[in-house]
Amino acid sequence: MVGYKFMGKAHSHAYKDVGLFFDLGAQVRMQAICGRNEAAVREAAEQYGWASYETDYRRLVERDDLDLIDVNAPSNVHKDIVIAAARAGKHVLCEKPLALSLADAREMLATAEAAGVKHGICFNYRFLPAVQLAKQLIDEGKIGEIYHYRALYLQDWLVDPKAPLAWRLQREIAGSGAHGDLNAHCIDLARFLIGDFDCVVGQSKTFVKQRPKPVEMSGLTAKGSGEMGDVTVDDTTSFLAQFKNGALGTFEATRYATGWKNGNLFEINGSKGSIRFNLERLNELQVYFADEEPRTQGFKTIMVTEDVHPYAGHWWPPGHIIGYEHGFVHVVYELIQSIVEDKPFVPDFSDGVECQRVLEAVDQSIETGSWVAIEDL
Amino acid sequence: MVGYKFMGKAHSHAYKDVGLFFDLGAQVRMQAICGRNEAAVREAAEQYGWASYETDYRRLVERDDLDLIDVNAPSNVHKDIVIAAARAGKHVLCEKPLALSLADAREMLATAEAAGVKHGICFNYRFLPAVQLAKQLIDEGKIGEIYHYRALYLQDWLVDPKAPLAWRLQREIAGSGAHGDLNAHCIDLARFLIGDFDCVVGQSKTFVKQRPKPVEMSGLTAKGSGEMGDVTVDDTTSFLAQFKNGALGTFEATRYATGWKNGNLFEINGSKGSIRFNLERLNELQVYFADEEPRTQGFKTIMVTEDVHPYAGHWWPPGHIIGYEHGFVHVVYELIQSIVEDKPFVPDFSDGVECQRVLEAVDQSIETGSWVAIEDL
Amino acid sequence: MVGYKFMGKAHSHAYKDVGLFFDLGAQVRMQAICGRNEAAVREAAEQYGWASYETDYRRLVERDDLDLIDVNAPSNVHKDIVIAAARAGKHVLCEKPLALSLADAREMLATAEAAGVKHGICFNYRFLPAVQLAKQLIDEGKIGEIYHYRALYLQDWLVDPKAPLAWRLQREIAGSGAHGDLNAHCIDLARFLIGDFDCVVGQSKTFVKQRPKPVEMSGLTAKGSGEMGDVTVDDTTSFLAQFKNGALGTFEATRYATGWKNGNLFEINGSKGSIRFNLERLNELQVYFADEEPRTQGFKTIMVTEDVHPYAGHWWPPGHIIGYEHGFVHVVYELIQSIVEDKPFVPDFSDGVECQRVLEAVDQSIETGSWVAIEDL
Amino acid sequence: MVGYKFMGKAHSHAYKDVGLFFDLGAQVRMQAICGRNEAAVREAAEQYGWASYETDYRRLVERDDLDLIDVNAPSNVHKDIVIAAARAGKHVLCEKPLALSLADAREMLATAEAAGVKHGICFNYRFLPAVQLAKQLIDEGKIGEIYHYRALYLQDWLVDPKAPLAWRLQREIAGSGAHGDLNAHCIDLARFLIGDFDCVVGQSKTFVKQRPKPVEMSGLTAKGSGEMGDVTVDDTTSFLAQFKNGALGTFEATRYATGWKNGNLFEINGSKGSIRFNLERLNELQVYFADEEPRTQGFKTIMVTEDVHPYAGHWWPPGHIIGYEHGFVHVVYELIQSIVEDKPFVPDFSDGVECQRVLEAVDQSIETGSWVAIEDL
Repeated sequence: MVGYKFMGKAHSHAYKDVGLFFDLGAQVRMQAICGRNEAAVREAAEQYGWASYETDYRRLVERDDLDLIDVNAPSNVHKDIVIAAARAGKHVLCEKPLALSLADAREMLATAEAAGVKHGICFNYRFLPAVQLAKQLIDEGKIGEIYHYRALYLQDWLVDPKAPLAWRLQREIAGSGAHGDLNAHCIDLARFLIGDFDCVVGQSKTFVKQRPKPVEMSGLTAKGSGEMGDVTVDDTTSFLAQFKNGALGTFEATRYATGWKNGNLFEINGSKGSIRFNLERLNELQVYFADEEPRTQGFKTIMVTEDVHPYAGHWWPPGHIIGYEHGFVHVVYELIQSIVEDKPFVPDFSDGVECQRVLEAVDQSIETGSWVAIEDL
Repeated sequence: MVGYKFMGKAHSHAYKDVGLFFDLGAQVRMQAICGRNEAAVREAAEQYGWASYETDYRRLVERDDLDLIDVNAPSNVHKDIVIAAARAGKHVLCEKPLALSLADAREMLATAEAAGVKHGICFNYRFLPAVQLAKQLIDEGKIGEIYHYRALYLQDWLVDPKAPLAWRLQREIAGSGAHGDLNAHCIDLARFLIGDFDCVVGQSKTFVKQRPKPVEMSGLTAKGSGEMGDVTVDDTTSFLAQFKNGALGTFEATRYATGWKNGNLFEINGSKGSIRFNLERLNELQVYFADEEPRTQGFKTIMVTEDVHPYAGHWWPPGHIIGYEHGFVHVVYELIQSIVEDKPFVPDFSDGVECQRVLEAVDQSIETGSWVAIEDL
Repeated sequence: MVGYKFMGKAHSHAYKDVGLFFDLGAQVRMQAICGRNEAAVREAAEQYGWASYETDYRRLVERDDLDLIDVNAPSNVHKDIVIAAARAGKHVLCEKPLALSLADAREMLATAEAAGVKHGICFNYRFLPAVQLAKQLIDEGKIGEIYHYRALYLQDWLVDPKAPLAWRLQREIAGSGAHGDLNAHCIDLARFLIGDFDCVVGQSKTFVKQRPKPVEMSGLTAKGSGEMGDVTVDDTTSFLAQFKNGALGTFEATRYATGWKNGNLFEINGSKGSIRFNLERLNELQVYFADEEPRTQGFKTIMVTEDVHPYAGHWWPPGHIIGYEHGFVHVVYELIQSIVEDKPFVPDFSDGVECQRVLEAVDQSIETGSWVAIEDL
Repeated sequence: MVGYKFMGKAHSHAYKDVGLFFDLGAQVRMQAICGRNEAAVREAAEQYGWASYETDYRRLVERDDLDLIDVNAPSNVHKDIVIAAARAGKHVLCEKPLALSLADAREMLATAEAAGVKHGICFNYRFLPAVQLAKQLIDEGKIGEIYHYRALYLQDWLVDPKAPLAWRLQREIAGSGAHGDLNAHCIDLARFLIGDFDCVVGQSKTFVKQRPKPVEMSGLTAKGSGEMGDVTVDDTTSFLAQFKNGALGTFEATRYATGWKNGNLFEINGSKGSIRFNLERLNELQVYFADEEPRTQGFKTIMVTEDVHPYAGHWWPPGHIIGYEHGFVHVVYELIQSIVEDKPFVPDFSDGVECQRVLEAVDQSIETGSWVAIEDL
């Protein structure tokens, strides 16, 4: 595994716990973790339970005791590591966004396909029971023809103007701000649930243009040093969308929605029903069915914690909720299944490419002030 | 109409508006309002739209231009006025609680029955669309056999120890405190929805035993005079209950539930479903049906504002909510229908008597520390 | 009053009830109602309590026993009636949208100003206690600098493809569909709460392009005749917006949001807090304050039913909720106050004009596929 | 560890993960798991990650490579195992309820105290961030003097009359039904949050008196065998309570609350504020403060996921929620801290005894039909 911060911890947890709850048909061995700061990566290896560590990803990919490389380092290093790993014949799981540009993403996809390895992108929210249930209902036609898709990803950690200039706020490392970090999730969920985008038009803004530099540029929590630096990514990006199936969409991602901590919300309205989801209450799905008895139609809140719900039976009895990190356990479970049974893992790098296409189309629309068709990218 | 305070205003509004929304088959004429304070009652007559006023209820009941007497003065005067009105051959609508004692309530019922007049008790919450819908669902067996009835009536206007010693806090006028004022509603709703009580055991408490006397003893809003007086009613009363149909119940009424303004809540659990209601969101009913498709079972929130819902079609389009006072309009509509068509009005004084029986059984259980059977009263 | 359908009923109720709850300094006399269908208007006069009726608005405006003309007939007749009334020296209250075009709206404003009469536009949602409270908090700086304004107006009455081709679906009568009917409210609320728009870009769609013609073209509830007609307005319109104060906005109005009956929602995020509102729970306002004690920050749900809240003290005790129609009572109260005290009424026709400008800018952006600056209209 | 079912899995997970998120000052070695069914316990050892297994707890407690014995087998075997472990000088963590009777619980407490070992009872819900925050607020006086404590524990897994006769439905194994299983949690939370009980009066009922026997009597999920057996525990128990601090309480536990999966709810009303909690949304706490600015008082929903909240900083960024099992991780963390630092662990067996006292007092009150003082047991 390459990366040992927030995502490194979440992914490590998944490898550690997956066998406790899922029948894998394989044994997970957490062989090696990799990072450039030796002291930090050594500590991470110990705390997270990795058997060894490396400080250079090139050494990691050369090791013959590894089948799978998990890449969750900052976005700007994804490309080199993923390509090296794939060329070395390793299966690869990469954090989103796949790359800093569509061109890079396409190169990564081509390389992984050429190498014949499994390639997955960690759109973890697809793997929540409530989201999987939404997918089932839509695929079964339970909400009919889709009219509207409405997505919000609302956080507020940048409202404080003294929050430091973390790597996520620097274009050369993060690629973009709320757009690539948050809209990437929303775009992928929309594609997963209702299909591909046709065209988009957007707007974005950086509300606070300078922030204190952290002493070391290595994490959200780093203290400011007093010196100011430029924020080079968007604080918020919103856009209108039209889908190939005729649905209309609205999307908004922001780190300035005071009071919202991790509100990844979507609502889908169809001719026969509606579906609502909020990540802060990820064990619940709200649905409305227009074909129920007229007197008792209403949005219902489903506790997606029963044996009949996707993944839920692997955890606890009904009503005993799961948390954010469980989505990663499901990702790892599915990825291991795809390797063990030699079947495709979805979402793969092609989904990463498609997501990147929409992200860049929105960026282009912001530059030109007009609609952009996805197929033109 | 006798009474011109909070309830006088609510009832006046109902008589004034009922014809705007309902086809009555009769013309409502607001002939006379009655109260002891001439200046106040004159002003009320003008503001509320009554054609004349009286300062003595005995003169009122003698008038031959009145068909219906509405009694919403404080509880201690209900009995005399109601009996006089019934004996004068007037139909009577009386605010709850019907009387200060079970004996009085029974006398009022007997008198009204002997006089052959329509007699109604203003349990206005029965007449909300959501409560009517709950009744329909239960009667149709949609929630099956009833296991649990859970009722709360939560207010907080007495949390402030400087709130004055209003008439509602004096036993000789109000009869009791939260018990008679709030539990009376909960008991009636339970009887309406699932049937009669079998036995009860309760507890009660007066948290703040002295309060400043108002300058005049005439309303909740009166300013304190500085002098302290004893609170002679309960601040809260809660009780366990067993129903004749085998269901178990819990009831709690309090004026010390900080943060709750007018939370009249009930939840009913049956073998096939559940129902929830909260008066602060009176346009909504929550239901759960255990026979729906397993993956998509959940509590649903019904906006009870459609044509298919009781009374709702008389008001506004779907989703355009109604307020607290609309329940009184429905009471008045039904009462006028019962007079015009000469059919019984429900709830009548016998419901007032039954409610009083349960209230007094709880009081008795508090004195004895043991369960009391309703049939022993 | 001109108009006797849904809005005619809501306005009539307001004139009838305002004196019961508000001290007006004037007597409201409901002199005359006007409509082209004599049988219908006669019945409306009787049911709603108007002393007389007219079948031609020209006769109405000539009467010298009227001070105020209330225009709530379909949108395409607003202009002629309003101009005639203003020229006759009558104060005018007009339903929204003010006119079918910006040019018409400007002419109406100019005429009313020249005539020196009070002119009001019935943006009734401004007058809800919760919305007024939101306005207070924003004006006092309680939520700081505004970053985001997010508005949705969600209904579902057109999801049924057999719903008839009502007048609201015909461009020549209604002007536009969800846009003029619903976005008009959202735009006005945004202007009221955070100020003027700078530029917009939008999208719209008509999902169901033909619908059964009603037997008579006179109401939402008319039965279909079997013959099909073209829907000539939008079923949904959404747009991105930038405000003069630097905030970004997203707006969406639709009649295809299955499950939503009358969901007029907004959320405002500022540097110090956030505010949320949903018309289906109009007695509540949700607020978040970022300067509260860190451990106990959260969105709070305020029951806007206390004496300290705008208008609420005129109605019932805390927690006793009001309904949709109460907003009209407040409009009428404020309008009467402006006449009695000879002070401006807000919102007036200039607000109608500004709303129309934004509506048309969105329409233009849809035609051109690019951003449109409001000041260019 | 003794036990390998639902609780065995939850506890195993806690030992496995605690070091990933908490700095322990010690290394957790999962040495041995114990159960009577060798095949099952061998499989559990492998799946959960225990280094060895035993089939007789007497052998387990003799092993000198164990410092701590965790007992989560069915309630009827707690006593013997715990006493053997304590006498062998092992620290002990025991699942609730501590024992089948108050006498047994007292004997276990005395034995553990005499042995000088750490003894903990696994009231895991105390250790949720939201519950810990509630405790902080109450202890700091933020909600003032306590008036009301209202607790519900609502499940619905027995509504289906074909659900099998699991061990939790047999008195000789489980001790009691909803009372010991669910009210035990509610009683402990009440004691933790507001202090000791003074007296109680209750009611209980078994709605479905016979159920199909499972083929083997070993789990909730076992299939029925066709033969019927008697349910010998309560399906529901509710009770009124008075606390030593003067507060009044209502408690209700049921497995027949259709629609509720694991609704462990409490609400506390005090003179200065209120607190609400629902286990199905365990990352949230609702609070109301009566001393906030009057216009903006309301119940606020706190996402208890920030660094300033108890335990939350050990997990994920704000808004990234945790699940049911995390409470056990906190229990294990605190227990290890108490061993490493040789300080008391709370809740210990004395809390188990106190909980048992209240449970038995309620049982006694049901037999006698009258109030029972806790101090009489």
